[in-house]
Amino acid sequence: MYHIGIDLGGTNIAAAIVTEEGKMICKDSIPTLREREHTEILKDMAQLCLRLMKEEGLKEKDIYSIGIGSPGTADPEKGILLYANNLKFHNVCMRKELQKYISVPVYLENDANCAALGESISGAAKSYKDSVTITLGTGVGGGIIVDGQIVSGSFHGGGELGHHVIKMDGDRCSCGRLGCWEVYASATALIRDARIAAAKNPKSLLLRLVDGDIQKMNAKIPFDAAQQGDKIAQEVINQYIHYLAVGIVNIINVLQPEVIVVGGGVSAQGENLLVPLRKEVERQIYGSDKIKTKIVAAELGNDAGIIGAAMLSKIYG
Amino acid sequence: MYHIGIDLGGTNIAAAIVTEEGKMICKDSIPTLREREHTEILKDMAQLCLRLMKEEGLKEKDIYSIGIGSPGTADPEKGILLYANNLKFHNVCMRKELQKYISVPVYLENDANCAALGESISGAAKSYKDSVTITLGTGVGGGIIVDGQIVSGSFHGGGELGHHVIKMDGDRCSCGRLGCWEVYASATALIRDARIAAAKNPKSLLLRLVDGDIQKMNAKIPFDAAQQGDKIAQEVINQYIHYLAVGIVNIINVLQPEVIVVGGGVSAQGENLLVPLRKEVERQIYGSDKIKTKIVAAELGNDAGIIGAAMLSKIYG
Repeated sequence: MYHIGIDLGGTNIAAAIVTEEGKMICKDSIPTLREREHTEILKDMAQLCLRLMKEEGLKEKDIYSIGIGSPGTADPEKGILLYANNLKFHNVCMRKELQKYISVPVYLENDANCAALGESISGAAKSYKDSVTITLGTGVGGGIIVDGQIVSGSFHGGGELGHHVIKMDGDRCSCGRLGCWEVYASATALIRDARIAAAKNPKSLLLRLVDGDIQKMNAKIPFDAAQQGDKIAQEVINQYIHYLAVGIVNIINVLQPEVIVVGGGVSAQGENLLVPLRKEVERQIYGSDKIKTKIVAAELGNDAGIIGAAMLSKIYG
Repeated sequence: MYHIGIDLGGTNIAAAIVTEEGKMICKDSIPTLREREHTEILKDMAQLCLRLMKEEGLKEKDIYSIGIGSPGTADPEKGILLYANNLKFHNVCMRKELQKYISVPVYLENDANCAALGESISGAAKSYKDSVTITLGTGVGGGIIVDGQIVSGSFHGGGELGHHVIKMDGDRCSCGRLGCWEVYASATALIRDARIAAAKNPKSLLLRLVDGDIQKMNAKIPFDAAQQGDKIAQEVINQYIHYLAVGIVNIINVLQPEVIVVGGGVSAQGENLLVPLRKEVERQIYGSDKIKTKIVAAELGNDAGIIGAAMLSKIYG
């Protein structure tokens, strides 16, 4: 038996056929064209699934479940996407719509929670019962797993770790609050801070590596410059790691998972990021206790969400 | 059948006999004399239990369990108090020690988690599966209940909501971190800020209500002065409610419980505190969504910890 995982994004819809163990056997994607009616988008999602099944020679009876990871707030029990701002979906019963085309059980969850579940079942957190996965990308996404289950609160809107304030009355976040973790610890924040530092320090390697054009800055360049000994870049990285550690220590003090999985673009730095991060977390940790929570890099990359979506039947089925 | 709950504090040990439904039928306390050996303290705890049983005409066979709420980090499965700074207990098997004197099952949990469980089973959160109880006292205590179970992390040290940083690089907390919620939202913080404001504003009602002696300040006086129209006191209260709301909105964004129970000394203000607090939380909440999490006052007062301790067998038995 196989599962299908779908990652419904604002730009693309990706789907994959996944084994019982969480191994992906094929994957494809189509553009979301998000301005369309939800019925059209869901029809395309179904057709993408059917195409993948056909390519693999699979019938409906071979598919145990379809899981959808979606932005916004999802009600997993009812299979309803309550609200997804960038898709303009509002109270859409994804299960019912998809089952018009394919007669298999359909499950739905928030995409960050799917990524956390994916890492928990077959990624970096697979030998742990309790984990938190954070994604350092455009924003800071979060998913909480306790005892193998997704913890998303009573109204399915929890797990928003990026939107916990670490700097009261700080800079404005896209969510409207002041000083959210996301404002300081996302890839976007790192790029912004690197641009500011490069502009202020025209002789820095930071500026040379973008050929004098700060618009070319990405999340990798400050790490590269810092490793090559650029003091300005090192300051940017140290400050970024400080921001990141404040939120991670908050997670440890409140949830104390066995492992925190760091994903998203910035996590491509691997141990370049994690070695100083663990050191800074150790420095900030509550009391004199040694830190017991492990901090590791995500293993599934962009596929975490699809694999987690495919595995939703394991927790909701 | 009855349960016994014990609240092991730094100053006093309180114990009570509690019904299956979480109703206290008798209670007494003795001084902890915390400098003593743990064996002596545990002997006193046992004798307090035996005395209460005798007074109520109960035998060992009438007692289903004894639960202990303790400061510090407890391992509920093993009944071991791993670490409690202000008691100097280190890896003490409370279960084994207590069972030297009374042959009934013994359970152990952190005291803030016991208070959360007490409110969850027979207090302000009793009709809810998911709740968070915060205690605004000397510090800010926290206990997380998800699906009726205490969430305290993989190493029993989670739930430390008072020690999540809301003001990065802010004032030093007793735990060593900078800018913990507790530094701004505890009763201690309110008293400190009221003292500063009173000292700066000699004509304020705030100073008159303490007869010009800021050492007499308590957590009630700024509320009293604010209600009587004192502008300085109103500023202190507004600022305090702002601090409190930042942490509460963080809890909502991360855990989104059905209800947040506010306990501890400051919660004696009831709706005087909660009406402006709910308004400020509504203002700060993520996105444009209406807040769904209820914010209510604790119902069990100082007994929450004892009642929760008595009920530990319901979740660990």
